[in-house]
Amino acid sequence: MTLRIAVVGATGYAGAYCAGLLARHPAVALTQVVARSQVGQPLAAVHPRTAVPLPLTATVDPTGLDAIVSALPHGVGAADVAAWVAAGVVVLDLSADFRLRDPAAYQRWYGAPHPAPALLAEAVYALPELHAEAIRRARLLALPGCYPTAAILAAAPALAAGLVEPGVVVDAKSGVSGRGRSPSLGTHFVEVNESVQAYAVEGHRHLPEIEQELAAAAGEPVAVTFVPHLVPMSRGLLATAYARLRPGVDAAALRAAYATALAGQPFWRLLDRPPATGWTVGTNHCWVHTAVQGGHAVLSAAIDNLGKGTATQAVQALNVRFGLAPDLGLRDLGPMP
Amino acid sequence: MTLRIAVVGATGYAGAYCAGLLARHPAVALTQVVARSQVGQPLAAVHPRTAVPLPLTATVDPTGLDAIVSALPHGVGAADVAAWVAAGVVVLDLSADFRLRDPAAYQRWYGAPHPAPALLAEAVYALPELHAEAIRRARLLALPGCYPTAAILAAAPALAAGLVEPGVVVDAKSGVSGRGRSPSLGTHFVEVNESVQAYAVEGHRHLPEIEQELAAAAGEPVAVTFVPHLVPMSRGLLATAYARLRPGVDAAALRAAYATALAGQPFWRLLDRPPATGWTVGTNHCWVHTAVQGGHAVLSAAIDNLGKGTATQAVQALNVRFGLAPDLGLRDLGPMP
Amino acid sequence: MTLRIAVVGATGYAGAYCAGLLARHPAVALTQVVARSQVGQPLAAVHPRTAVPLPLTATVDPTGLDAIVSALPHGVGAADVAAWVAAGVVVLDLSADFRLRDPAAYQRWYGAPHPAPALLAEAVYALPELHAEAIRRARLLALPGCYPTAAILAAAPALAAGLVEPGVVVDAKSGVSGRGRSPSLGTHFVEVNESVQAYAVEGHRHLPEIEQELAAAAGEPVAVTFVPHLVPMSRGLLATAYARLRPGVDAAALRAAYATALAGQPFWRLLDRPPATGWTVGTNHCWVHTAVQGGHAVLSAAIDNLGKGTATQAVQALNVRFGLAPDLGLRDLGPMP
Amino acid sequence: MTLRIAVVGATGYAGAYCAGLLARHPAVALTQVVARSQVGQPLAAVHPRTAVPLPLTATVDPTGLDAIVSALPHGVGAADVAAWVAAGVVVLDLSADFRLRDPAAYQRWYGAPHPAPALLAEAVYALPELHAEAIRRARLLALPGCYPTAAILAAAPALAAGLVEPGVVVDAKSGVSGRGRSPSLGTHFVEVNESVQAYAVEGHRHLPEIEQELAAAAGEPVAVTFVPHLVPMSRGLLATAYARLRPGVDAAALRAAYATALAGQPFWRLLDRPPATGWTVGTNHCWVHTAVQGGHAVLSAAIDNLGKGTATQAVQALNVRFGLAPDLGLRDLGPMP
Repeated sequence: MTLRIAVVGATGYAGAYCAGLLARHPAVALTQVVARSQVGQPLAAVHPRTAVPLPLTATVDPTGLDAIVSALPHGVGAADVAAWVAAGVVVLDLSADFRLRDPAAYQRWYGAPHPAPALLAEAVYALPELHAEAIRRARLLALPGCYPTAAILAAAPALAAGLVEPGVVVDAKSGVSGRGRSPSLGTHFVEVNESVQAYAVEGHRHLPEIEQELAAAAGEPVAVTFVPHLVPMSRGLLATAYARLRPGVDAAALRAAYATALAGQPFWRLLDRPPATGWTVGTNHCWVHTAVQGGHAVLSAAIDNLGKGTATQAVQALNVRFGLAPDLGLRDLGPMP
Repeated sequence: MTLRIAVVGATGYAGAYCAGLLARHPAVALTQVVARSQVGQPLAAVHPRTAVPLPLTATVDPTGLDAIVSALPHGVGAADVAAWVAAGVVVLDLSADFRLRDPAAYQRWYGAPHPAPALLAEAVYALPELHAEAIRRARLLALPGCYPTAAILAAAPALAAGLVEPGVVVDAKSGVSGRGRSPSLGTHFVEVNESVQAYAVEGHRHLPEIEQELAAAAGEPVAVTFVPHLVPMSRGLLATAYARLRPGVDAAALRAAYATALAGQPFWRLLDRPPATGWTVGTNHCWVHTAVQGGHAVLSAAIDNLGKGTATQAVQALNVRFGLAPDLGLRDLGPMP
Repeated sequence: MTLRIAVVGATGYAGAYCAGLLARHPAVALTQVVARSQVGQPLAAVHPRTAVPLPLTATVDPTGLDAIVSALPHGVGAADVAAWVAAGVVVLDLSADFRLRDPAAYQRWYGAPHPAPALLAEAVYALPELHAEAIRRARLLALPGCYPTAAILAAAPALAAGLVEPGVVVDAKSGVSGRGRSPSLGTHFVEVNESVQAYAVEGHRHLPEIEQELAAAAGEPVAVTFVPHLVPMSRGLLATAYARLRPGVDAAALRAAYATALAGQPFWRLLDRPPATGWTVGTNHCWVHTAVQGGHAVLSAAIDNLGKGTATQAVQALNVRFGLAPDLGLRDLGPMP
Repeated sequence: MTLRIAVVGATGYAGAYCAGLLARHPAVALTQVVARSQVGQPLAAVHPRTAVPLPLTATVDPTGLDAIVSALPHGVGAADVAAWVAAGVVVLDLSADFRLRDPAAYQRWYGAPHPAPALLAEAVYALPELHAEAIRRARLLALPGCYPTAAILAAAPALAAGLVEPGVVVDAKSGVSGRGRSPSLGTHFVEVNESVQAYAVEGHRHLPEIEQELAAAAGEPVAVTFVPHLVPMSRGLLATAYARLRPGVDAAALRAAYATALAGQPFWRLLDRPPATGWTVGTNHCWVHTAVQGGHAVLSAAIDNLGKGTATQAVQALNVRFGLAPDLGLRDLGPMP
């Protein structure tokens, strides 16, 4: 099988990385790369490493495509997504547009009415570790944000097993590529180098996703306090989650629950020491560790924010959606050490 | 007044930085620099930037000294400290030896009986913001660790004002210089660069200090869960503390309590946005920010781990101890931006 | 003596750092901070570390000022500079406007006729190590660029002593703050982190300054090939200069010439090992080293590009101009290690 | 075809990366991983990212092996190499032992008599771009050092075409992983972060390799001045080479010579702007750029020091030696951007 795929938003970090991955994927033919700027130039001229010679086009032609990966900012591509779905193309949307089931939550966090509420009912929150079955049947895959990917994979097993109370503090640390490729003072080397800083301390847009998915795992509402931090590295994301242990739960029971939940997972792995984000760069792995301290479960998960947090996760979801081997196109070693 | 001062352990990062600061301090004569290696060499040959021409000596001669700054590892210098105190010299000890009031806690966390328990009763936990009065009368100043400095300055006002429940999760992020100058895989550039990682997730030696001091602030025991993280930067330390708000407490009340507590403090400052550690490098400042999210107070404090976390704090404590202006010798701009 | 000084262009990296330094300078009253944006805000609100409470103003009032430090981009402030000089104020211009004696060279490299050619005759190239006498009498001090400062201090003594042929290859490596504070893809963290790259390989605007000053040192024209590189660090600049040794010149003779040339210099220091730029951050030092390999002199000079390369050098020039101690206001330790 | 291969020295950076690559190589069965420490542990326990479950062994068994990759330090493995060659196994030696044709040069630069001089005559300097024919017939492949790989690929075409005089200044900038995995002050994060520094300014052990190979390319002796620099990044190496143009040679002629020399090369590519090392990380690419300034050719080449500089180059040489597709096992995207 060869899937014909287009990447929309192909000059940003997520889109370009995804295009580079799909161009090397043995079951994929990357046939279109779409962007708002530098139209007509080969993608390889903008991002030499992709080695993708396709010229950038201003619009996508869905004819004959099996799937479209949309790497547009939230709110920008929703109407197009609806059209592509209607045209029978599977859409993998990297934006936040279809992640929240509740349009009111969307409006509250993104400051505008949902651009395509009719699609919310069928969109699948495309975290393969939790929703593989739904992904296999989906027309519209809403890829999780990078912070939620790590936070959910860190905390969901403990909540699902009822080992912790339904309240979680998530302290997350992200590399700068999470802020995208547009220059700003917040991505200026001198402003972020040799410094670490919390932001969005009163609530970040990724919070409702985390609450939605952790509640689904727990089977009850989960109160989440989520504080992201910017760390001076290009890639990598660590979520450290803290939840109060239920009475009688010890470290061994906690770890056993994770061993069970992660058994057979190709990318979600339990480690016997706290994971370093560096071990994940260029891969789709999510390394998880559990510990107990001061009555709390201390749950950490490390990912590459542009890998498992974005682009390689899209490839993983694509593999699941089309029945391919889960790690097809995802076996790169990455820049070890 | 000119204080005659020696620095013991002068080739490590903390000792060398302290020596460099004291050599520039207008009320100090740095008369001895002591180290276990490179004896006979000028300190400036080991650390050019100090510009301290004094040769390193193997032992300190307390005769005529007003104070000794001891930057030895824990457990190494305690017997000497006792002798120096007995000889009438004020000792500022940067190690962990005299921070914990309870010798049993010392033994539990440091794995050996306390080396000089008789001195514990009079040692002062030398965090000037909380214990200025005691510092003025002390013969033995136990300087706080870098993590506790930030954690305590982040959370103490909320606990002291009774605005939060007596349980705190402290998620802290430190630069690599906190691990000292001895080479190891844990300080190897390639191992720590482009990566962030939690460590000591089941309990770090700085935990009991934090509990001791936060309990003193709260007037009741405080359960602390403290997880340190290593961040790829040389200097800087951020503590993000989470505590459940007591009923009826809102963001304004929280902030007002900090404004009151920090009023008049020369180095402990309330900021209207979350502080970046980069703003503190080369200074003695501790920038603090308060916010409310998900029923929790989110309290962050940024310091330079070798500055307010170690060496400039020692100078600050020295100034307090000897009645000098609090910022004497501490007015450097640092490498802005 | 208290000099009344204004800083124009006070929100960029060079201007803000200079303002922070002058605010702490014991013989200076910083009375005005001027910027094109954020007018009305205290400088400390934009750059907390400066702690300068003065509000930013849109224009400078030269009345009563002893000096103005102008940190505007090239071509922007030249007309103002002329007016300030005419008003009797000493001007320290950090831009490139008055560095080149030859207006034709200015036009060739900066792409426009010189904006104030009448002032070129009296402007002094304000590198204190080479032009102290002229600085003492100057009304208009043209501060050298960061690359030229290091390149000239690396190579001038060898040329002046006639030890090398009059041709120099300068391979220079700069931290990212040299690109200024305006966000661009070229200062985006992800684009410059974990990477090193040459730029302006066919000729950089700092080249004619280097040629002008090295020729003056050599007493004959000097052919310079100058290639700047961007290095993933915030601050620091290393110039490695290569020049063919004249027959009979050995390493000892080369080093002796530098020892002689640098004798008594407060900031220009000869080191017995190649200098690291990290040793200079936050200081006005220029560390120099000489070696011989393959028939070439290998001359390296390390500075802080925003210190000796820009802002602390302006303070040094100010001290020289007004007869103050050369290191007044320049004794900061910096963030050692 | 499946080649049975062992990696000796598998816990260092070069060996582990090579093992990870070979474990994913479609024509290779990695059957043994050998190290001096942590024997008995799976390689994946030491380097999780390799995902190589083979336990480390203390010695290699050459029986049935097609090739051994030896990643031992120079001088350590030469006797073993001789035995392996005698046993009929193709050896790819990453050390410096067999790179220099002249045993006297080895003794001069490595401070000991050559450990196996009898093998020097048949060892091939395994830079595939220059010596593919010899590699195809070799029993012993001496892989080039990381600095020589970049320096030679930067300068050889200009010398081979007679466009420059036979003298080259090579100013090279390397990431810290080039110093290996053993902790030292020279690899301590705090010592090398935020700093750049020249070293071995009087001559580095990689110099004679560069001279040997550039002389072979030029057909006459070439005087090389080579100065390495340490840059604060984990991976990447940039060589900037300067050579005086012969009369009448212009930028177009220079570039045309490179276009000709690099035509058809799978990994050695001519770029129209100076390459950034970041574009090469995790790949086997060597990006080259040519320019003219001040009578000099300015030739820059960027590689990943652990990729084209070490481990991926070994895989490339293996592919050439055994007649495989040149990029087999070398198609990873790497951590773009």
